[in-house]
Amino acid sequence: MANLQDIGVSATINLLSALAFLVAFALLRLQPINDRVYFPKWYLKGIRGSPRRSGHVHNFVNLDFNMYIRFLNWMPAALKMPEPELIEHAGLDSAVFVRIYLLGLKIFVPVTFLAFAVLVPVNWTGDTLEHAKGLTYSDIDKLSISNIPAASKRFWAHIVMFYVFSFWTYYVLYKEYKLIASMRLRFLAAQKRRPDQFTVLLRNVPLDPDESISKHIEHFFFVNHPDHYLTHQLVYNANYLAKLVEKKKGLQNWLVYYENKYERSPTQRPTTKTGLWGLWGTKVDAIEYYSTELEKLSKEEDKEREKVLSDPDALIPAAFVSFKTRWAAAVCAQTQQSSNPTIWLTEWAPEPRDIFWDNLAIPYVKLALRKLIMAVALFFLTFCFMIPIAFVQSLANIEGIEKVFPFLKPIIEKKVIKSVIQGFLPGIALKIFLILLPRILMAMSQIEGFTSLSALDRRTAEKYHLFILVNVFFGSVVTGTAFQQLQKFLNEPSTEFTKTVGDSIPMKATFFITYIMVDGWAGIAAEILRLVPLVMFHLKNAFLVKTDQDRDQAMDPGCLDFPVSEPRIQLYILLGLVYSVVTPILLPFILVFFAFSYLVYRHQIINVYNQKYESGAAFWPHVHRRVIIGLMIAQLLLMGLFSMREAEQSSACLVALPILTLWVHKFCQGRFESAFVKFPLQDAMVKDTLEKATEPNLDLKAYLKDAYVHPVFKDSSLEQITFIDDDEESNSLVPTKRTSRRSSKFPSEDNSESDA
Amino acid sequence: MANLQDIGVSATINLLSALAFLVAFALLRLQPINDRVYFPKWYLKGIRGSPRRSGHVHNFVNLDFNMYIRFLNWMPAALKMPEPELIEHAGLDSAVFVRIYLLGLKIFVPVTFLAFAVLVPVNWTGDTLEHAKGLTYSDIDKLSISNIPAASKRFWAHIVMFYVFSFWTYYVLYKEYKLIASMRLRFLAAQKRRPDQFTVLLRNVPLDPDESISKHIEHFFFVNHPDHYLTHQLVYNANYLAKLVEKKKGLQNWLVYYENKYERSPTQRPTTKTGLWGLWGTKVDAIEYYSTELEKLSKEEDKEREKVLSDPDALIPAAFVSFKTRWAAAVCAQTQQSSNPTIWLTEWAPEPRDIFWDNLAIPYVKLALRKLIMAVALFFLTFCFMIPIAFVQSLANIEGIEKVFPFLKPIIEKKVIKSVIQGFLPGIALKIFLILLPRILMAMSQIEGFTSLSALDRRTAEKYHLFILVNVFFGSVVTGTAFQQLQKFLNEPSTEFTKTVGDSIPMKATFFITYIMVDGWAGIAAEILRLVPLVMFHLKNAFLVKTDQDRDQAMDPGCLDFPVSEPRIQLYILLGLVYSVVTPILLPFILVFFAFSYLVYRHQIINVYNQKYESGAAFWPHVHRRVIIGLMIAQLLLMGLFSMREAEQSSACLVALPILTLWVHKFCQGRFESAFVKFPLQDAMVKDTLEKATEPNLDLKAYLKDAYVHPVFKDSSLEQITFIDDDEESNSLVPTKRTSRRSSKFPSEDNSESDA
Repeated sequence: MANLQDIGVSATINLLSALAFLVAFALLRLQPINDRVYFPKWYLKGIRGSPRRSGHVHNFVNLDFNMYIRFLNWMPAALKMPEPELIEHAGLDSAVFVRIYLLGLKIFVPVTFLAFAVLVPVNWTGDTLEHAKGLTYSDIDKLSISNIPAASKRFWAHIVMFYVFSFWTYYVLYKEYKLIASMRLRFLAAQKRRPDQFTVLLRNVPLDPDESISKHIEHFFFVNHPDHYLTHQLVYNANYLAKLVEKKKGLQNWLVYYENKYERSPTQRPTTKTGLWGLWGTKVDAIEYYSTELEKLSKEEDKEREKVLSDPDALIPAAFVSFKTRWAAAVCAQTQQSSNPTIWLTEWAPEPRDIFWDNLAIPYVKLALRKLIMAVALFFLTFCFMIPIAFVQSLANIEGIEKVFPFLKPIIEKKVIKSVIQGFLPGIALKIFLILLPRILMAMSQIEGFTSLSALDRRTAEKYHLFILVNVFFGSVVTGTAFQQLQKFLNEPSTEFTKTVGDSIPMKATFFITYIMVDGWAGIAAEILRLVPLVMFHLKNAFLVKTDQDRDQAMDPGCLDFPVSEPRIQLYILLGLVYSVVTPILLPFILVFFAFSYLVYRHQIINVYNQKYESGAAFWPHVHRRVIIGLMIAQLLLMGLFSMREAEQSSACLVALPILTLWVHKFCQGRFESAFVKFPLQDAMVKDTLEKATEPNLDLKAYLKDAYVHPVFKDSSLEQITFIDDDEESNSLVPTKRTSRRSSKFPSEDNSESDA
Repeated sequence: MANLQDIGVSATINLLSALAFLVAFALLRLQPINDRVYFPKWYLKGIRGSPRRSGHVHNFVNLDFNMYIRFLNWMPAALKMPEPELIEHAGLDSAVFVRIYLLGLKIFVPVTFLAFAVLVPVNWTGDTLEHAKGLTYSDIDKLSISNIPAASKRFWAHIVMFYVFSFWTYYVLYKEYKLIASMRLRFLAAQKRRPDQFTVLLRNVPLDPDESISKHIEHFFFVNHPDHYLTHQLVYNANYLAKLVEKKKGLQNWLVYYENKYERSPTQRPTTKTGLWGLWGTKVDAIEYYSTELEKLSKEEDKEREKVLSDPDALIPAAFVSFKTRWAAAVCAQTQQSSNPTIWLTEWAPEPRDIFWDNLAIPYVKLALRKLIMAVALFFLTFCFMIPIAFVQSLANIEGIEKVFPFLKPIIEKKVIKSVIQGFLPGIALKIFLILLPRILMAMSQIEGFTSLSALDRRTAEKYHLFILVNVFFGSVVTGTAFQQLQKFLNEPSTEFTKTVGDSIPMKATFFITYIMVDGWAGIAAEILRLVPLVMFHLKNAFLVKTDQDRDQAMDPGCLDFPVSEPRIQLYILLGLVYSVVTPILLPFILVFFAFSYLVYRHQIINVYNQKYESGAAFWPHVHRRVIIGLMIAQLLLMGLFSMREAEQSSACLVALPILTLWVHKFCQGRFESAFVKFPLQDAMVKDTLEKATEPNLDLKAYLKDAYVHPVFKDSSLEQITFIDDDEESNSLVPTKRTSRRSSKFPSEDNSESDA
């Protein structure tokens, strides 16, 4: 077991590496050439057009040494923006996300003070370890609950403090839920007119042999919402078209690349090969080749677009139905339309950019089956993920490779390569899996059939939280793989399990302290450096960028990685709650994590991230629930811990806590959750009335006309416009008549009918 | 362990006792004097005015011996009425309730056949018990799974059959859920105009310092449902008034009693004493005394009624809000009104007679607290109910009584009394508790704050189901009290618990067979005899009845005791599922129970019961869920059983079943449950449109005017009218002006305002 000095060394190393990241960040962000990497948000907002040019600033390298001296001044700057302005600037999702770190601080600052004031002295004077002979112990253990003799009266101090901590957590959670619910309501009330306020996502439209889908929808809503129905927008299965558009983008990039090349050295026309990745095949003139390829693809895209728009089979039995008032949309979203609850499903429409288009057309039975399969898959992924990795690892040793590829034998047998393979390959399989994990989980959530990106993110976070809980927390406390834990859990009395886990908790304190420093401190410092986007930007900048506009497109502002970051915070909150009475010395490390993360993420959402959607903090009920789960785990484990220390009575005193926690959860849920899932009619009516008074002549139909068009129809037109601007007008790739035809043809499909 | 012969004897005894009940019933029901006990439903329907008088039938005793010969002909008669007519006659609740027995038959008839065709031969030829030396066994054990040697390949037969049984159960459950959902929808669609179709129950109206509750409600709905709001009915806190009305009824009964007495012997005016129960106090003329008492009470009632109607403090912050169309009511019931989810709560109004008035005014925080307390109380009631009973039992022995009441010593010490106390008292405490249990559970549900009788019934059934499951099923399989089981469950590995329980299941087969015969067969036969209502009716008939109308009031048709009967059926379904592969010989006993119960209850709902409310089979999702719970318990226990028989592999094969069961539940829930809790707008619109076409001049406001008046306001007026008819017109107790004033005064409170 590590002693205080070991921890000190580790802390120094991690602090230094974090500091190195910070210094690197401070230096890099001041270079004008990196401006678009570290301040993309401002470019996207249109506030900053190009790097600030003060007198002393060179075009690529900043030579103003005064600025280097104040290299940490981004920290106060990150805190300076007041919250209302932050919400205005970065959206409610981001503003509330950084509040999760603040929640951690709110819970743990008083807890840390109290724990150090009460529990550390109680533990320090416990004197068990000093008098135990032949036992090696460290200073950290002397500060922990291990220093209290079994069945001691001193445990009452821990019990009382844990009650205090639990009640404090309830209080903070309740206050925060209340605040964020009101923030959300205020945010929604203050929003300007948006298409999703008037629109409902309709799914599982039953097919009618006599009518087209469009007619059928129209008739249904004319009958059942006679005074309120306005129009609807059909959904097309444009997956193949989206693929074509994606492919075209790639070809365009190559064309631009070769054109740039030609421009720089006009003496030699660039050539390329027609085969795979330009490596094989016949040599051709690159610019000509890509131009013709692009032309071909554009034609195919045209045909496909026409096909999608005209082919009735390309229609998905789903639609976006818009109403004349927000009130009517709220009504339709909250009510059941048909007596068969699997058809005519209505839900509040996500905002247009939040929609996950692929999942709009899954019938009920299929959805139920997918959920079943994914639940089973999640179970195996969580508890048995080590099995395939161990299999890969067993393959990836010297003998395995030699068996499969005998011809590689002479190379592998060389000493240097052998040691690399033996030392590196086994670990890399696990590392790759862990890097891919969030994507795997996201793919699983997509299969489950959620229709909006925000819902997908929330669901993925839930899965990742389960994985971290089982494999990081329990996996570290109880040794062995998750599957072995599960077996243990099933084959042991359930009280026994909490006891063994509870008992080994104090011993793992030093491990978790190191974990917090490596994963938390250094990880967050790496986040602010944005190494990958930095490299990517400069690569793009070198090869693809011609104009400032291109440069803006080469920016990758990224966004908050909610499915990964949130479960991590939850792990730290869980650690804090568990160790608050067991080993209070861990708490300051968590405090540093929360404070530092709060700073970094506040800086990032102000200067960098560009959110893909705005859900209005719809994730808060999930955050709340997971903190409650953490609190409950902490309470159960402490009960196990106390009963192992022969303090059965005190353990019994804790029984009320999990029940109380559950009740607090139910209470808060009933009190606030509906603010995140339902849509009060009163608020809708207020906005409707206000709008009617201020804009009596609003043409809502025109406003909503193209709001819910599949992005490939929208993007392509946008792209084409950019294309025209950038390229020579004579380029025949973009027949201008198409653009106009599209915009005239598209609405005809649904609006001419609804006018009828 | 009992052998086949013992079971045969027990079966004979129980069959004979059931037969005795049936014969008694057959004889009693033919006597005209009992006609109102055994056919009250027909009297209430107004189809039967007095006992059938054929030529041979005497006024009190039936002397037509032909009718006695066909004494079992009620059985085919009970089956004759087709289901649609049954629904029309007895309501959907009753018709669906007897379908639960049919569900049992549907599940278990094929299961029984298959089990006897496959499993009984497999078990019989297992040969373990015959070769085991020194083991006593019975024929029943030879037919059970106990006869299969450990780790035998024969277990595969059981596994395959259990899969077949499970899938058959899924299929039947799915089919039945589907059928009953469509029955409910058809039933609701076919219903005539009813007040609850237009009405929403509004609760937790926030208090406004500037406005009365009525004004506040009106303004809110005029703003937020401007085109649809019609009127509302306030709710008064009339608990004290209800008490007065109840007291008055009692006094009236006494008055009638003495008047009857006087009529029969006009020579002597009856006297009574003014003290407690007419046993002490001064002697007075009875008729005069009760007349003046009644007069006094009527005056007090008048004053109280006026006070309730005029005092703003007597208003409860709840109301019944009515809309112009069913569509608007459906919208309001399903949407959230305010951004604060604890005020302006709307839900579909129960039908007027279904309302539980006392619970209409509980604020949110109180409700959450009540639920917490009741959950804890339910836990203790279920697991620790033996503690207070054991305490009472310990008091109720000879020494205990002697200690507390030393003066009773000489009496108690007598041998006869001593043996009675010792043999009888300990048992009676438990018996009284078990009889009171449903009422205790109902009181707990009332405290939880449900607003309708049907919801209370469903909730109580849930509690009773938990109690039966823990204390009857697990209590019989695992010996020891429920609390000991709980400790065992917590201190053993969770797999170990299912193993021990699973292991002891085959041994308990004979016990449960006896239980089915005593509780099931004889209990149902006793149900049809209706001994308590029979006695009560004749007592009332002798002392209180003057006219045929009085006689009708003396009838007590009773109603289906859903909270008690349904959990019992669930116990039998659970037993059938568990023993279907373990001891198939138990299945025929269950079949007899289901078939016999089906007959009896079908007879009862046709001829006897008068339901207090009609919920449209809203209980079916609960029934479905509890069958699923039973199936899951059976699956888990069988896994335990197989793994105890060293058939670990086969046990592992069963793992998929609980997951599948859970999924089937989720699937059915998603598919059908909303038919029981939500209100499709389409159906509402259809009814609205139809009504608009057929009755364009309907005055809905007048129709709804008094629909949701507290029953004390209604009952009293009805009663008064009866009173006037029966009694002399000169009776000054009922000033006729009051009746008229009431009906003119009452609506003014809420309707004049809503006209404004």
